Amino acid sequence: MFHHDKSKGPHKRRWTVQTKVPVSFFVQFSENLFDPKNGDLLEIGARGPGARRFLVVDENVHKYYGEKIEKYFRKNKIVFALCKIHSHETRKDMDTAFFILKTMEDFKLQRTGEPVIVIGGGVLLDIAGLAATLYRRGVPYIRVPTTLLALVDASVGVKTGINHFSRRNRIGSYYAPVGAYLDRTFLTTLSEKELSNASGEILKMAVIKDKQLFELLEKHGARLIKEKFQKSLEGLEIMHRSIHGMVEELAPNLWEKDMKRLVNFGHTWSPLVEMVALPELSHGEAVALDVLFSCVLSNERGLMKNTELERVFSVAKSLGLPTFHPLLTDLALLEEALADTVRHRNGAQELPVPLSIGRAGFYNDVTREEVKKTSLALKKRIL
Amino acid sequence: MFHHDKSKGPHKRRWTVQTKVPVSFFVQFSENLFDPKNGDLLEIGARGPGARRFLVVDENVHKYYGEKIEKYFRKNKIVFALCKIHSHETRKDMDTAFFILKTMEDFKLQRTGEPVIVIGGGVLLDIAGLAATLYRRGVPYIRVPTTLLALVDASVGVKTGINHFSRRNRIGSYYAPVGAYLDRTFLTTLSEKELSNASGEILKMAVIKDKQLFELLEKHGARLIKEKFQKSLEGLEIMHRSIHGMVEELAPNLWEKDMKRLVNFGHTWSPLVEMVALPELSHGEAVALDVLFSCVLSNERGLMKNTELERVFSVAKSLGLPTFHPLLTDLALLEEALADTVRHRNGAQELPVPLSIGRAGFYNDVTREEVKKTSLALKKRIL
Repeated sequence: MFHHDKSKGPHKRRWTVQTKVPVSFFVQFSENLFDPKNGDLLEIGARGPGARRFLVVDENVHKYYGEKIEKYFRKNKIVFALCKIHSHETRKDMDTAFFILKTMEDFKLQRTGEPVIVIGGGVLLDIAGLAATLYRRGVPYIRVPTTLLALVDASVGVKTGINHFSRRNRIGSYYAPVGAYLDRTFLTTLSEKELSNASGEILKMAVIKDKQLFELLEKHGARLIKEKFQKSLEGLEIMHRSIHGMVEELAPNLWEKDMKRLVNFGHTWSPLVEMVALPELSHGEAVALDVLFSCVLSNERGLMKNTELERVFSVAKSLGLPTFHPLLTDLALLEEALADTVRHRNGAQELPVPLSIGRAGFYNDVTREEVKKTSLALKKRIL
Repeated sequence: MFHHDKSKGPHKRRWTVQTKVPVSFFVQFSENLFDPKNGDLLEIGARGPGARRFLVVDENVHKYYGEKIEKYFRKNKIVFALCKIHSHETRKDMDTAFFILKTMEDFKLQRTGEPVIVIGGGVLLDIAGLAATLYRRGVPYIRVPTTLLALVDASVGVKTGINHFSRRNRIGSYYAPVGAYLDRTFLTTLSEKELSNASGEILKMAVIKDKQLFELLEKHGARLIKEKFQKSLEGLEIMHRSIHGMVEELAPNLWEKDMKRLVNFGHTWSPLVEMVALPELSHGEAVALDVLFSCVLSNERGLMKNTELERVFSVAKSLGLPTFHPLLTDLALLEEALADTVRHRNGAQELPVPLSIGRAGFYNDVTREEVKKTSLALKKRIL
């Protein structure tokens, strides 16, 4: 566990602590999570007399499901505090995190046995995750994603964060939740537009590493969005494949020591584009635009074939995703975005680029000229 | 790395990620750390053209050592930003942490290769450590403690934090530094009062687990404080033993999963006492008072012998530590402090109590009556 090195004499005494911190969390589908008879959500944490839970619930989710959620805990005899948050990318800030922290303090939240249960979209999961990291140096928390985007993306992984200095997630932490419970029935109260936005992250996963997923999107995507991913097994299959891809990529690299990450696909130019376009572009839309931009870049390099490029664009369209945005012709912005991404990736581009649908490579030699060429090629498509 | 469980069908699909995150850091003595020929501090991080470092320096330390520190980096051709902080327990807050974060952002600090070097006392190490945790979900940082307290206490371990909601370190994280460099020459510019305060933490370690350390304090403590721990090997030996004890206790339990911790000794009633008495009592003084209170409690239980109790009190006195404070007769406060500590220790007291000097047990049955009795016995000593 530690090494005490006396070899260099009393003036250079040295101790080295070396250890491995076990980290474990789960992602579990569970339909009708708030049916009082569904015990999944209460598997973790104390039960019996006086058992308590601290809930952080998105305001909008509360409007639709508040009564059901509260009834669930009452029926199961759990004392709870419910912290309602109006969560939005523009309010993903330290004030919101501190509001949650204050409510935790008022509840006198214990360090263990009373997991924080966060019910909402990716923004809320990120903010509340940060609050859970920080309160008393960390309390356990459980994610309950209520949007498609959060279901396939934010529910996996250990990242928390808020926006600051006009940069996405500039302040945050790596902090594993206990787990995430995924209940697709939440999707019934989402608009088609929201489901369509979220499909940007699924498209990303499909294009960069899962051809079968791409074909599922091609065949069923448009219909599933209309059906809000309910009932059919294809809806589940698409979510499963998308999550499986995320788990596969994240599990060996939770703390992002390795910045050569396939899941960075769609996240090269999009972070800044999304911030600048706020609130016009959703995260999924920005990711989709980045995916398409990268596919055009690949095509311009002679990698991705024209037929495949057309398939990607047509799937994006069928999912209701944007295929163009004027900011993608703002070369100064694209340059700044790439520079910031390079800083984020420890000074290397490590750009995941699809060679064909479902197969990728990493590139480190993308030039300003090439970005300009790509941007022009993208623009030409809409003329 | 992960397990994919399909056994319960598509509606209950489950993934479990299980991994171990390697954590490693060192604590290394190095005299004259800022002698341009001493390469220790630059072992970690990038060298060569364009190499940079981000320094966070206590304002008061800067007054004495600023020129020397800046010269060190200039001579070694390191580009640096120096963020000067007026650090104090009363300003151990989020504003200060955000000031550091803002300066990091302005410096465009990279995620790796540019370790943050924090030069100051425990308060600054804690705040800057928190900023290092949060900036881009964590950048590497190095601790350079400049006070005796920070040298033997804050330099070991992985805790960061700020005060909030009128509670010490209510907000913080577990985040390992790359390492700490310990240079006792910093102690020359400290007052005897400051060294005396710090000896409270050393006394804690001695009483709870290291009789030899106690005897060193008994024999040399008062003189070493006058000599500011310079030159003599006894000064180093006391620091080594104190740090060794900390490393031994912390290494197997860095994330404090086990709340039965000897290092909690002296930290049962003191956190609240210190906060209420602010700025009157220093941390080390508050800890010493808690140590003495616990020894009296042990003596009242018939554990620690009268002769040993007297030795502890007389060493405390010889080190210039307080042996009484009126707040230790405020029973409501003591009760609130113990209740808060119990919450902090997951609902259990886990009170480290010395059975004799250097030997300890854990108690979970301390009653309000016993605390009252202890308080009266302590009060009687000064009558």
